Amino acid sequence: METLYPGIYTLTFGTPEALTPVALRDFAPAVDALEGLPALPCPFAAADLRFRTTGRGCQVELPLSGFEQLYGFGLQLKSFGQLAKKKTMRCNADPVADTGDSHAPVPFYVSTDGYGVLADSARQVHFYCGANAKPGQTERRMTIEIPHAQGVTLYIFAGQNILGAVQRYNLFSGGGAMPPAWGLGVWYRCYTRGKRPEIEGFAQEFRDRKLPVTVLGLEPSWHTKAYSCSFLWNEDNFPDHENFVANMRAMGYQLNLWEHVFTHPTAALYEKLLPFAGEYAVWDGLAPDLSLPEARALFAGYHQKEFAEKGVSGFKLDECDGSDFTGGWSYPDAAAFPSGLEGERMHNLIGLLYQHAIRRAFAPLGERTWGLVRASGALAAPSPFTVYSDLYDHRDYIRGMVNMGFSGLLWIPEVRNAAGMEDFIRRLQTVIFAPVAMINAWPFPLPPWKQVNDALNHAGVIMENTLEAEAVCRSLFELRSALAPYLYTAFRKYQTEGVPPIRALVLDTPEDEDCWNTEDAVLIGDSLYFAPLVAGETEKTFYLPKGQWVDFFAPGSAPLEGGKNYTFTYDLDHYPLFVRAGTLLPLCDVQQFIPVRPQFALRPVYYGAAPTAPVAVALYEDDGHSLNAPGRTVRLVMQPGGSCSLERTGDGTEMYTIAGGQQ
Amino acid sequence: METLYPGIYTLTFGTPEALTPVALRDFAPAVDALEGLPALPCPFAAADLRFRTTGRGCQVELPLSGFEQLYGFGLQLKSFGQLAKKKTMRCNADPVADTGDSHAPVPFYVSTDGYGVLADSARQVHFYCGANAKPGQTERRMTIEIPHAQGVTLYIFAGQNILGAVQRYNLFSGGGAMPPAWGLGVWYRCYTRGKRPEIEGFAQEFRDRKLPVTVLGLEPSWHTKAYSCSFLWNEDNFPDHENFVANMRAMGYQLNLWEHVFTHPTAALYEKLLPFAGEYAVWDGLAPDLSLPEARALFAGYHQKEFAEKGVSGFKLDECDGSDFTGGWSYPDAAAFPSGLEGERMHNLIGLLYQHAIRRAFAPLGERTWGLVRASGALAAPSPFTVYSDLYDHRDYIRGMVNMGFSGLLWIPEVRNAAGMEDFIRRLQTVIFAPVAMINAWPFPLPPWKQVNDALNHAGVIMENTLEAEAVCRSLFELRSALAPYLYTAFRKYQTEGVPPIRALVLDTPEDEDCWNTEDAVLIGDSLYFAPLVAGETEKTFYLPKGQWVDFFAPGSAPLEGGKNYTFTYDLDHYPLFVRAGTLLPLCDVQQFIPVRPQFALRPVYYGAAPTAPVAVALYEDDGHSLNAPGRTVRLVMQPGGSCSLERTGDGTEMYTIAGGQQ
Repeated sequence: METLYPGIYTLTFGTPEALTPVALRDFAPAVDALEGLPALPCPFAAADLRFRTTGRGCQVELPLSGFEQLYGFGLQLKSFGQLAKKKTMRCNADPVADTGDSHAPVPFYVSTDGYGVLADSARQVHFYCGANAKPGQTERRMTIEIPHAQGVTLYIFAGQNILGAVQRYNLFSGGGAMPPAWGLGVWYRCYTRGKRPEIEGFAQEFRDRKLPVTVLGLEPSWHTKAYSCSFLWNEDNFPDHENFVANMRAMGYQLNLWEHVFTHPTAALYEKLLPFAGEYAVWDGLAPDLSLPEARALFAGYHQKEFAEKGVSGFKLDECDGSDFTGGWSYPDAAAFPSGLEGERMHNLIGLLYQHAIRRAFAPLGERTWGLVRASGALAAPSPFTVYSDLYDHRDYIRGMVNMGFSGLLWIPEVRNAAGMEDFIRRLQTVIFAPVAMINAWPFPLPPWKQVNDALNHAGVIMENTLEAEAVCRSLFELRSALAPYLYTAFRKYQTEGVPPIRALVLDTPEDEDCWNTEDAVLIGDSLYFAPLVAGETEKTFYLPKGQWVDFFAPGSAPLEGGKNYTFTYDLDHYPLFVRAGTLLPLCDVQQFIPVRPQFALRPVYYGAAPTAPVAVALYEDDGHSLNAPGRTVRLVMQPGGSCSLERTGDGTEMYTIAGGQQ
Repeated sequence: METLYPGIYTLTFGTPEALTPVALRDFAPAVDALEGLPALPCPFAAADLRFRTTGRGCQVELPLSGFEQLYGFGLQLKSFGQLAKKKTMRCNADPVADTGDSHAPVPFYVSTDGYGVLADSARQVHFYCGANAKPGQTERRMTIEIPHAQGVTLYIFAGQNILGAVQRYNLFSGGGAMPPAWGLGVWYRCYTRGKRPEIEGFAQEFRDRKLPVTVLGLEPSWHTKAYSCSFLWNEDNFPDHENFVANMRAMGYQLNLWEHVFTHPTAALYEKLLPFAGEYAVWDGLAPDLSLPEARALFAGYHQKEFAEKGVSGFKLDECDGSDFTGGWSYPDAAAFPSGLEGERMHNLIGLLYQHAIRRAFAPLGERTWGLVRASGALAAPSPFTVYSDLYDHRDYIRGMVNMGFSGLLWIPEVRNAAGMEDFIRRLQTVIFAPVAMINAWPFPLPPWKQVNDALNHAGVIMENTLEAEAVCRSLFELRSALAPYLYTAFRKYQTEGVPPIRALVLDTPEDEDCWNTEDAVLIGDSLYFAPLVAGETEKTFYLPKGQWVDFFAPGSAPLEGGKNYTFTYDLDHYPLFVRAGTLLPLCDVQQFIPVRPQFALRPVYYGAAPTAPVAVALYEDDGHSLNAPGRTVRLVMQPGGSCSLERTGDGTEMYTIAGGQQ
């Protein structure tokens, strides 16, 4: 048992494989932050852990205390508490059952006992979370099986509590991802068959109608070939694309381009990548082995030169998972890759390797990127990508919101079509509080607030209540815009302290067992509580954690006492959104887009009994877009009476001004 | 490449594992039948097959012709044609997606090109059915990956056509299972909490109401402990159980007992089985390693002495699969068993090993048994068990009817609760034509024809139209009873020639490509065509295969010309059921139960234009219940004008008499 950092222990059993998530990591641990943490004893004695090799690979057994709940394993959409379950870490598209299969499986779990365990393997690791005892015995253990491997290294993260263990895991991963400020604006992905005139039409309409949108996404139509991908602008669809990009940027938009990794024979990269390609083609395109520095450099260099340097801000990385549940379109698990990886591990790694390659297209320019990806995995916290899915169950999506924080992931419970207006609005309310607030309208010629029904949208039939729908969207987009300073600061805490910006209640109050099974509410930052509604719910029973909470929509109202369930009735415009009593919430004035070099005019609102002394909140500021931008923490102070001021020390970019305040 | 039997080839690559389906088979190949088949060349040259070992195990690639469809892989409920798919052979409860997971995965596929391939492995074999080419190539191959193994033996079954390949596979398996005649009667599984008075109440009611039922099933309440199982009669629930069994038999009922394999510490078998148990308990019961002759003999001997010799006719074998989709209640894939098997292979084998053990409880008595099982696998054709499932989608169940015949399996698409009367009746119509015709009313205190709604059934609320519902059931039960001679003869053909008694259209007419995708109709025996309806369907479009077909419900009607689609409207009492024109259908008079020593009074019906010469059909007869009973084929002849006779040669048990006939 080796102490790696204070409270982080590592233990190697047998002969681990060479190519693992830790070995292939692209981010160094956040050493300074880790070294500043207190020493904590390891939750296990080495003698408590039992290892053996088997005909299938190897396995380690770890003790369970008998009174704990377990969470994690990545983006689990089908369940929350994992005790007594079997979970298999297999990355694939559209996982439909509670098997562990996920867009972003992570061989890491945390316990309410205040520890976390990472099994450093890219294999389809199986976790048997204490379902079975041995005959005649009662003790239940965690059994971690690593197929095809003769050993494994475990990383054990101690914590004063479960959040502490998660923080250590995130800091070991490199600290959380820090978005460019524009990434926190509203995103809109345009119709998949849209050409330049249609996209420019959307862009103009959003500005004309005062719908604050910052990022526009282009879908496959920008490629000359999309399945597989050519990564070449389609000049038929986007004539003079450089001019198009410049126009969009001039209107304040950031552009995000859809692609996937399978490289079409007509791609400029094809011949160069061929020596680094896997054994099988997918959609007749090669599968680059991005674990090889040469392949990654080729991929990154091309994206830098052709896109990053030409004004594109980021990418949506599709199809980088597997197809176990979707017919088998991807490469087989046994497919050979030049690095020595085979399909099994590549499926679990390619999402991350792809993220690393794309990030490296922007890094040389000193710019942050912020993108979407359909697959991720272990140690992903610093990677500037949010996981999305083509699944579409709203409750599953909410469960993703609750689970993402356990495993260093960001997740968007997207919205596109809907069963009706109520469904659309409830889904939009959920996504407005996600790491990326996006309407993923790729299937739609018309924005969904004009028509939520897929067939009618294609038929051009505009809903009667489209103006009401647009107003709801505008209001939610504006709410998102107003939260940007709060969210930016929460992300900074993710980056420097490893605290997930959006997280399950149990992470903050593990001593409150009523939170252990709360899978339908999250904390956003340290001061906001959010319990999304789904279509059909007009009355909602929700659990407020201990403490005092004020209704976001009624700042002057009496606080509710947490630690119990409440049942309220909600109209379509409202839902359980609460602010911790005593919070100065740093809202800002709405802008139609968040610029690259952002300026936020603060209009903070105080939640709680009228203060008799100054109240304050810390905000993070920097230039909002550069990698390694110097930054600082600003103190926003409100005097009893409501006048506000900013307290800064030293030089630096000033991101905030005061526009007003409300008590 | 070794020729094993005419048209059956075997080829070993690398070093196969010792414990495989062929190595652990309990039935010898039907050598006489196999040796009588014509020699056929192997569809592959050895040089066309490519083998390699990998870090994950090994794999073989086989050619695909580019114009063929593939079927098989066991009880696939989610798909029919398998070309271009990935299928994993993993046995588990409640498989929910089209992944290959199944109650009865079989590493065997057949092609419309007229061949079949068995990969002899109990591993979670992956079949990649030609989804991917190599970069820059167009050829698609079948890739069979056997994880954790360093070699594999393939068995290649040639055929003049696809049915010929299936027949060879079934004969290699030992020939199809031959039911006792009583097994073809109607089954009813009684309420899971039913005690002796309730069961006797059902028994009397069925006789009083003239509902022909032959087999009664008891659910867990007969055990003193059921999860895990004690295999001990619960005298509180079934006082004087020997008298109970005798009474039931005296009323003409056969008794079938529910159990599973996990053995409770209070079981008489527990201490004896403990040395042969797997590493992990399930529901605190031991998991016997039934691949060991000692364990199998203990299990079989106990069941012989305590049940078979005391009048029990068979068992329903539950929970003998795996729990990948159901939370992980079973033993881990890496769990060690004394034979050297581990959980992975045991999950894929235990259903079959369990069947073998139970069959051996009856074999020493010279009696056939006929039972239910939730898991099966390779080479299962001779095993006297029908696979059932707790899944409940009617269309999936119909797909099971269509798929079972490709892989030597029998399947019951069961019926219990329903969304309403229509749903209940449509489901019952499907199950009446299954290998076992059973109402699986275990959740219900009242028979479902009194109340199909689960909650209302428990509340004792009888439906207003219960008498109509009862009449529908009676009519369908009677139809099943009338088909017994026809079905018995079809099963004999399964046993001796390997022709599945219920099978997809494509097996008989592979040259008709319109049959390649017909996944909602089956042939039953050689002369019946059945396309089940599901709730909501009043109009049905169905494909009739080439030939001429007469509506079963209108024997005198004009034949329809097959080879095309028909669309008809159906009331609740009817559905597409057709008889091949020119068939003398050997129906019989209804009996309230099929006795152990059956006598069938034939009342055949001729379908087609009025015959001008005698028409005939062959029927198989024997004593109806003994293993290895001498039997013979009887010729049932109808003269123009309608008088019927039976033509027999030699001595033997006479199973049939003539009651009448209809032209």
